[in-house]
Amino acid sequence: MVHADATSFPPNLSKPQAYQQLLDQVEGLCLDQRNWVCNLSNTSSLLWHLYHSLPSPASDVNWAGFYVYDHTSPPAKPRLILGPFQGKVACQTIAFGRGVCGTAAATQTTQLVPDVEKFPGHIACDSASKSEIVVPIIVEGKGVVAIIDIDCTVENGFDQVDKEYLEKLADFLAKSSDWP
Amino acid sequence: MVHADATSFPPNLSKPQAYQQLLDQVEGLCLDQRNWVCNLSNTSSLLWHLYHSLPSPASDVNWAGFYVYDHTSPPAKPRLILGPFQGKVACQTIAFGRGVCGTAAATQTTQLVPDVEKFPGHIACDSASKSEIVVPIIVEGKGVVAIIDIDCTVENGFDQVDKEYLEKLADFLAKSSDWP
Repeated sequence: MVHADATSFPPNLSKPQAYQQLLDQVEGLCLDQRNWVCNLSNTSSLLWHLYHSLPSPASDVNWAGFYVYDHTSPPAKPRLILGPFQGKVACQTIAFGRGVCGTAAATQTTQLVPDVEKFPGHIACDSASKSEIVVPIIVEGKGVVAIIDIDCTVENGFDQVDKEYLEKLADFLAKSSDWP
Repeated sequence: MVHADATSFPPNLSKPQAYQQLLDQVEGLCLDQRNWVCNLSNTSSLLWHLYHSLPSPASDVNWAGFYVYDHTSPPAKPRLILGPFQGKVACQTIAFGRGVCGTAAATQTTQLVPDVEKFPGHIACDSASKSEIVVPIIVEGKGVVAIIDIDCTVENGFDQVDKEYLEKLADFLAKSSDWP
């Protein structure tokens, strides 16, 4: 049975080691469970607790979660809608192309943003957020089904290690969950 | 636009006042949005931050979120599946009738449990949890569509005020979201 202890990251792990533990745990969680809400809810919790087990700037993460493709949006005006997350209340919908999340969805590429104030059209859901990384979850034949979104209260909160491992996580989630 | 500031509960609110603010905010969030994942994700965040704005035992809440009816479960063996939440990783599925959550779903009644160790068949997803309140979300003609589940690390974490306001929240969510 899944247990809260799975959320414990030993305090002396390096960031790559902590991400590897997270990937192993997500793989375990998705073994017999393809429900996307269930899987993204537990993955949000693991991401949140991973960052808060690491030193700054990772420990300054103030939002970790997902937006998913909104199937009620017109095909010509696709939109993301809020999925499971940990952190403060967030924007409910985001148009493809708008802000960091919308750009990752529209371009199907990771957005690693050291200073959100300098990102054209940035959506300030929380003025405390200073840097952000957004990774698209892409399913072959369906396109972008969701995005992983992580915010940090300091500039330069994320680096190539975050990009590498969050892209691995996105690839795994794309295959291991049934998407709406 | 929805903003993270909505998550701020002034520090001197009484518990009924804080719950009333939450109900007003959830009503605002659901005004133009009936997507259940989006609404439960933001409501989990509001619940978490409400409890942590109040003195102990409310501030000892360690899990706040939802389980929903699992439509892949056989009608004769109905099951709940993990929905949006804030806190540590949680059990993925819970059979109707099992533990505090399963009992609330099967009996369609709120379970206010001062000491989970004394609850027959309690599921120890997190051994840190000592008390729990679970409120069913019931839609006319559909039955239980979800449950609200709040855990606390001390005994007697919840009282009649929690029951009263969480039941109001359940009634509102039942009507204001489109359920799977």
